Amino acid sequence: MDRGLLALALFISLPAAADEGMWTYDAFPSEAVKKAYGFTPTQEWLDKVRLGSVRLAGGCSASFVSPDGLVMTNHHCIRECIVDLSSPKEDLLARGFLAKTSAEERRCPKVEANQLEKMTDVTARMNAATKGLSGAAFNTALKKEMAAAESECATSADVRCDVVTLFNGGKYHLYQYRRFQDVRLVFAPEFSMAAFGGDPDNFNFPRFGYDAAFLRVWQGDAPAKSPHYLPWAKQGAKEGDLVFVSGHPGGTERKATVAELEFQRDVNLPYTLLGLSEVRGMLREFVNASPERYRTTRSRLRGVENGLKALRGRHQALADPALLARKRQEEAELRKRVDANPQAKAATQGAWEEIAQALDAYRRMLPEYRMKEQGEAYPGELFTLARDLVRLSDEQSKPNAERLREYTEAQLPTLRQQLLREAPIAAELEQALLGFGLNRLRETLGADDPFVHQVLGREAPADLARALVKGTKLGDVKVRKALLEGGKAAIDASKDPMIVFARKVDAEARAVRKRYEDTVEAVLKRNGERIAKAHLAVYGTSGYPDATFTLRLNAGQVKGWDENGRAVAPLTTFGGAYARHTGKDPFKLPDSWLKAQGRVPPETPLDMATTNDIIGGNSGSPVVDRDGRVVGLIFDGNLHSLGGRYAYVPETNRAVAVHGDGLLAALEHVYGATRVVKELRAASDVASSPAK
Amino acid sequence: MDRGLLALALFISLPAAADEGMWTYDAFPSEAVKKAYGFTPTQEWLDKVRLGSVRLAGGCSASFVSPDGLVMTNHHCIRECIVDLSSPKEDLLARGFLAKTSAEERRCPKVEANQLEKMTDVTARMNAATKGLSGAAFNTALKKEMAAAESECATSADVRCDVVTLFNGGKYHLYQYRRFQDVRLVFAPEFSMAAFGGDPDNFNFPRFGYDAAFLRVWQGDAPAKSPHYLPWAKQGAKEGDLVFVSGHPGGTERKATVAELEFQRDVNLPYTLLGLSEVRGMLREFVNASPERYRTTRSRLRGVENGLKALRGRHQALADPALLARKRQEEAELRKRVDANPQAKAATQGAWEEIAQALDAYRRMLPEYRMKEQGEAYPGELFTLARDLVRLSDEQSKPNAERLREYTEAQLPTLRQQLLREAPIAAELEQALLGFGLNRLRETLGADDPFVHQVLGREAPADLARALVKGTKLGDVKVRKALLEGGKAAIDASKDPMIVFARKVDAEARAVRKRYEDTVEAVLKRNGERIAKAHLAVYGTSGYPDATFTLRLNAGQVKGWDENGRAVAPLTTFGGAYARHTGKDPFKLPDSWLKAQGRVPPETPLDMATTNDIIGGNSGSPVVDRDGRVVGLIFDGNLHSLGGRYAYVPETNRAVAVHGDGLLAALEHVYGATRVVKELRAASDVASSPAK
Repeated sequence: MDRGLLALALFISLPAAADEGMWTYDAFPSEAVKKAYGFTPTQEWLDKVRLGSVRLAGGCSASFVSPDGLVMTNHHCIRECIVDLSSPKEDLLARGFLAKTSAEERRCPKVEANQLEKMTDVTARMNAATKGLSGAAFNTALKKEMAAAESECATSADVRCDVVTLFNGGKYHLYQYRRFQDVRLVFAPEFSMAAFGGDPDNFNFPRFGYDAAFLRVWQGDAPAKSPHYLPWAKQGAKEGDLVFVSGHPGGTERKATVAELEFQRDVNLPYTLLGLSEVRGMLREFVNASPERYRTTRSRLRGVENGLKALRGRHQALADPALLARKRQEEAELRKRVDANPQAKAATQGAWEEIAQALDAYRRMLPEYRMKEQGEAYPGELFTLARDLVRLSDEQSKPNAERLREYTEAQLPTLRQQLLREAPIAAELEQALLGFGLNRLRETLGADDPFVHQVLGREAPADLARALVKGTKLGDVKVRKALLEGGKAAIDASKDPMIVFARKVDAEARAVRKRYEDTVEAVLKRNGERIAKAHLAVYGTSGYPDATFTLRLNAGQVKGWDENGRAVAPLTTFGGAYARHTGKDPFKLPDSWLKAQGRVPPETPLDMATTNDIIGGNSGSPVVDRDGRVVGLIFDGNLHSLGGRYAYVPETNRAVAVHGDGLLAALEHVYGATRVVKELRAASDVASSPAK
Repeated sequence: MDRGLLALALFISLPAAADEGMWTYDAFPSEAVKKAYGFTPTQEWLDKVRLGSVRLAGGCSASFVSPDGLVMTNHHCIRECIVDLSSPKEDLLARGFLAKTSAEERRCPKVEANQLEKMTDVTARMNAATKGLSGAAFNTALKKEMAAAESECATSADVRCDVVTLFNGGKYHLYQYRRFQDVRLVFAPEFSMAAFGGDPDNFNFPRFGYDAAFLRVWQGDAPAKSPHYLPWAKQGAKEGDLVFVSGHPGGTERKATVAELEFQRDVNLPYTLLGLSEVRGMLREFVNASPERYRTTRSRLRGVENGLKALRGRHQALADPALLARKRQEEAELRKRVDANPQAKAATQGAWEEIAQALDAYRRMLPEYRMKEQGEAYPGELFTLARDLVRLSDEQSKPNAERLREYTEAQLPTLRQQLLREAPIAAELEQALLGFGLNRLRETLGADDPFVHQVLGREAPADLARALVKGTKLGDVKVRKALLEGGKAAIDASKDPMIVFARKVDAEARAVRKRYEDTVEAVLKRNGERIAKAHLAVYGTSGYPDATFTLRLNAGQVKGWDENGRAVAPLTTFGGAYARHTGKDPFKLPDSWLKAQGRVPPETPLDMATTNDIIGGNSGSPVVDRDGRVVGLIFDGNLHSLGGRYAYVPETNRAVAVHGDGLLAALEHVYGATRVVKELRAASDVASSPAK
């Protein structure tokens, strides 16, 4: 048994390590934290930190850091906004941005911020709606009831309500958020500093990135008030300090069945990784050709590379026989206990087998589903806009509860904002991506496939892409507005080639979606729920639910790790950043940092590693100390954390954050962001410690 | 149990299907063929077809089709030669080539042809040399004895000798080939016709490619004599006809252990596929930029795409749980029988476990090995030339048996030819590839890796690649000749940046190679051999050995298959090719075909599917009828054949060939290749049927 396997095997019979767990705020294990760290978060402490936490609807975390709506997050979480606000003459991604006055703060076209105000258990309501149902009927009834509950709750455009799934459907909660749609950019460093070390350093540590940015939420024509905010700590975090992370981990599969994990390893991840690898190769060569291409594409490229590395890490975790061995053992143990419990046994009859069968069906269906419905055949913004306009015009005539989920009333404010944003669309990139997607469609489904014939006719993919991108007027927000307001009549009458194209592919796309939802998704969900309930029945609710981009809190400490015998220290410094500078991208410090060398003492901490249990979606999460004060800003995890999708390994899994001291020091001495620094200091001075 | 699983499960307990098997000529199952098809190949028949078969050393098959050294193979097997003979002004890949006289036949710089003259069993000699050894000692002794046997046998530059491994080391044979190094291009169609349907149609059927080419081997200043050749059939093959394929399947893993298959599925194939996907995306975008880039790169791109599709097919076969289930069952059955046989049991003690451990070590080592030693960090021709010059200068001073295998005396003629070929090297492509590889090196091993530091220093990968490619003079064959003849002194004194670079990385590359060979390769080989011998002990030699790019023969029939309920007919026609023409690449017929429309009756067969058991390396194999006459030319397999790497599934596995009738008809009526057609007809008329 190798070391890895031994560590994992031992781990099975132990209770969850103190630092493991993405806990919902209503079930935080304060006792366990007290036992491990001698500190108990009170209800007041929990409420304060929860209300200071912010979700960025696009898939990130953030926090209020002043009473005047100032929001801290990662640079990479608002990179798209920065690109949207840029132009060939004003490349904000390259040179950064600083609003000297609140009037200079610039609205991000696509960013929405949410603050979690209320959580209500609606498990009974959902269970009542799906009682006795399975397959498609189960799925439809569940979606309908979710949409109904959300729509009852969302009483104004400022309220966002989501029914969230916890414990794989063992529980359902209704989350009510305060919604901010006017979010403005206050400060962003240069891309080269935010992503210092680039793709090579991504998911690595030691690390020297300054992946921070500040936004502000506005209401009417003034900054919004945010009385619940997280004040800056007077003193930074040191090695061994207890720290909490409050944020929105996007998704984990720690409770997945072995069949589901094998499906990820053998089918889903390889398929996705191959697509990402190819598009990465394409985009890297694409941006080489001109500075303008580099400007419009580097953000997307970075996103692709980040996704690729993250998914490779997941695949590698699953390719390690030790992890699957542990999961097999856990599943066998669960099934043994379930078998010993007559009620649980009856309730899960055939559940594992049905999951395996649905996955076998999915394996055959996956390329078709991903191509036609998930849009891999038609990547790019223009098609997405066209599809949304076409589908919305169809869906709006249906009762709310019968619509495709993304077109229910609760989703419309976000959707309208997406459709009407002013950001420019890079036609050259659109054309390259669409040509790429159409080519992939043909090679994936085959040149003799009827849908491929329908889409391409006798056209070459690149030619069709050129014709669609050059022909469409959807890049013009006025055109989109007219189509949006004109409703179905306008869409049906439109001769815009992208609209015509989106209409043409829609029937087939909807058909495969329906097949997927009825024969795969519904079966996995229904049986996952059965197993989850059996799990709750035999183990109780002492565990934490898998992540679902809902707000979670966890405790950990500032701590390095042992990397194959080499000790990795938990803190890096400003001096280290200057030592890593080679002058060549991606190890090239921006001029601002080169000019400021010496102004910040070289021993000042810049980044840190902590044992907090995080995952993608936690980007932008505040790191707070026992006083609930900000001591850092999560922006990454180490390579080992990628396997955290499936299991938390306390020895090596580390979160990576910008250190609070370094964050403030650079803001002041490198960027001269006096207005922001003053606001943070004032907020810090005013706040009294919430811990009693 | 789904249909696939059922088919496979049934299959386990049956003897190998009649059409399964890549048989060596000395153990061809004539009785089984007689039983299935009522025809028994005689020894004379076997000798004739064997001597008519040709191996192209680069990795393809071929055949003699006239007594004057005329050789038939696939266009894709000599694509590199066609590129080498091209120039910006004369793009032979685009427009094809036809030598009107033998004086116009043009020498391929890198092509070597081999004709198998003799096979000798040297198992006892190899076993004696490795008796009692394991690990590195086993590997070293085996390599040494192989090199010694080869070198004793290779008495002149016209003789090539390889010790070949059969039954995973259960047997070793010494193969003696007649070697032809002067191979000239006679005829090649346009790339667009050879690869009609391009990547979308690759590994698909129905198919309409004309993937044929003719070469001629020369000796001195005249065409070589080839008294053993395969005459053209007077009558083409029809559905249901018995056909044989004689060729060189490159490699199968049908006897691999389950651990080895899982390693392929989880580690090796994903790693390789991701690299290929990315380079594909890069190259597709790269060739978009200019016609000259397209000209110099399309052949490599096609190779990458072909490899990618082939390996994806393999991965998909392994991702199907049914295949692994069958393999697990077979392995369990073998182990049960071995356990019941005290001698076999003792001989295999710990063998499966040692293989699993070696694979675990390999999993950790693979990226490093592939990057440093297998050259993924430095792709392109210039580095390969530099490495060969550097290593040869080091190895030449060692006794033959102690050298790295690729620098033993037996390999030197081929190596010299590679080093001194006149073909131009595309600098722009070299630079793009090298930059790509160096970037991959850094991201794979990490920016903090000492080797990465040593290689890159403070340089960006693209900058270093540019400096090396622009600075080296190795593109000049005179420079290479001087370094080759100057030996170690010249190499040590060279300041050529690519030579300096190749010297710099060599110690680390050799070190990881040694670790790989000692702790992975040797263990896999040694234990594979132990298992193979036990397999022979309990099952006997009634089976066929896994493919190892050695000459094999198999029987099959012209036959379509059932594709999910849709019947696929075994023959396509000229009419079908014209119907598939869209005018857009890759479905654009060349002008020659458009002009010739009507000259060949539309019902004339163009391509065909057969049940023959083939795999990569069989490309270019002749398809012969029971008279040993040519009725087709293998150039591909269908998608299902890709899983043939691990198992032959008779229901769906199909070889794909150009039909003999169509081949000749296009040669005559589309290309006006009168000289070749006459030669083929004359040879066909002269030959008497070898079957008695």
